[in-house]
Amino acid sequence: MSFTQRLREIQSKQNSLLCIGLDVDADKIPPHLQSAENPVLEFNRQIIEATRDLVCAYKPNLAFYEAMGERGLASLRETLKLIPKNVVTIGDAKRGDIGNTAERYARSLFDDFGFDSVTVNPYMGFDSVEPFLKNPDKGVFLLTLTSNPGSKDFQRLKIGTKLLYEKVVQAAKKWNTNQNLGLVVGATHPRELKAVRKIVPDMPILIPGIGKQGGDLKSAIRFGCDSHGQLALINASRSIIYASSGKDFAEAARAEAGRMLKKIRQYLEAMC
Amino acid sequence: MSFTQRLREIQSKQNSLLCIGLDVDADKIPPHLQSAENPVLEFNRQIIEATRDLVCAYKPNLAFYEAMGERGLASLRETLKLIPKNVVTIGDAKRGDIGNTAERYARSLFDDFGFDSVTVNPYMGFDSVEPFLKNPDKGVFLLTLTSNPGSKDFQRLKIGTKLLYEKVVQAAKKWNTNQNLGLVVGATHPRELKAVRKIVPDMPILIPGIGKQGGDLKSAIRFGCDSHGQLALINASRSIIYASSGKDFAEAARAEAGRMLKKIRQYLEAMC
Repeated sequence: MSFTQRLREIQSKQNSLLCIGLDVDADKIPPHLQSAENPVLEFNRQIIEATRDLVCAYKPNLAFYEAMGERGLASLRETLKLIPKNVVTIGDAKRGDIGNTAERYARSLFDDFGFDSVTVNPYMGFDSVEPFLKNPDKGVFLLTLTSNPGSKDFQRLKIGTKLLYEKVVQAAKKWNTNQNLGLVVGATHPRELKAVRKIVPDMPILIPGIGKQGGDLKSAIRFGCDSHGQLALINASRSIIYASSGKDFAEAARAEAGRMLKKIRQYLEAMC
Repeated sequence: MSFTQRLREIQSKQNSLLCIGLDVDADKIPPHLQSAENPVLEFNRQIIEATRDLVCAYKPNLAFYEAMGERGLASLRETLKLIPKNVVTIGDAKRGDIGNTAERYARSLFDDFGFDSVTVNPYMGFDSVEPFLKNPDKGVFLLTLTSNPGSKDFQRLKIGTKLLYEKVVQAAKKWNTNQNLGLVVGATHPRELKAVRKIVPDMPILIPGIGKQGGDLKSAIRFGCDSHGQLALINASRSIIYASSGKDFAEAARAEAGRMLKKIRQYLEAMC
């Protein structure tokens, strides 16, 4: 089954488009967990247990684990084992390198860590993306129009009648021969999200930037979903995992994830 | 002292523009090293000992170490300790993420691993590059026109009268307020390398793509150097470190590096 088809089934069964970003910062782990054998792993374990029925995906960003050295990467590996098989894992690594090197990254993220999908940077072109696309079971989210201020620096440059990120969308559509390619479009660009969804009616779109970054959930749902109300992945990281810094952090994360999911479902219903 | 100034001094003292890419593939390590406690580290140790007087820089590509898991990253960390302080280390990681996340990558590569410089992907714009530029001692090589076939997919798209990679050059020139920013331009694009050097007469240019990828050394020197015959870093990886797969691999690497350095010096002299 292709990655995109599997994502559809998971989103149906979980009745959720919510993705939680496991961007764990050692400094922000609640004090009472600091004495645990592995505070990062314990934090993730409790977040996952508290939210696993509310999400379609978890997305750890590799930077946060790499910043903790080999121990951080070991924690990431253990975290992945705790994620139930009925949700998707996204390795947010934003890698990109020449063909023979990209193969190594694909091997590390897919085979060694075991991620179901990864984020990839398009700048180096097709041979840097191809090694990630070979296995139809494994998914790729190609950076398209990112949620950060710097997205205006190059992604919005005008190329003839198109902008650069639209060229990325066109290329991705062409490269998606295995039905396992998706895009990353920030919720901070609702109008552009709508336009992108029209061009790729059946590709997954990972939508970060809700919450701290100021993106609007309602338009992310309205413009990001396909015609079945699927294939948008609404990512929230800090607003959920750091909803509380106390002993109730996992409950608070569940409550916040629940609030978001409720809104997602309301907005989806309103569309039907 | 800024990174660029330090690179100048190192290139003068070493009388070399050669950078060796330590892209170590577990499968390609000579059989007689397989019984060593840490074959990767032993391989790198011998390569570094055999070539340390011939280079201005070593450039490990993170993908090759990540593909070996935490053990690979530990080997990379140990490898960095073996590199003499009188040459530059380049962490070829091609990272790029939103500001708060890019900070984590910078911390990991500069503070934790201790690289002198890193490669960074420009696609996500200024806030994704800025965290790497804060410390003037630490350098950044921004991907500009890469050596691979996919470089044509986006990097050469036309924006008004410029191409995308030229926009990256212009931005980099503006962002280089700490004299620690350089560019990556593949030796497979000699004409463009010449044009880029004219725009940035005093920024370092890392030039991969010599050897297996087909780039020409003579034009890389001729077009990549600044007016003092400096600031080009000529990278070779596989052609040097896998010059022999036998017990003589280190000697063979030295011989190949020596051949390249001799040519580099000849081409430099011919320019004066």
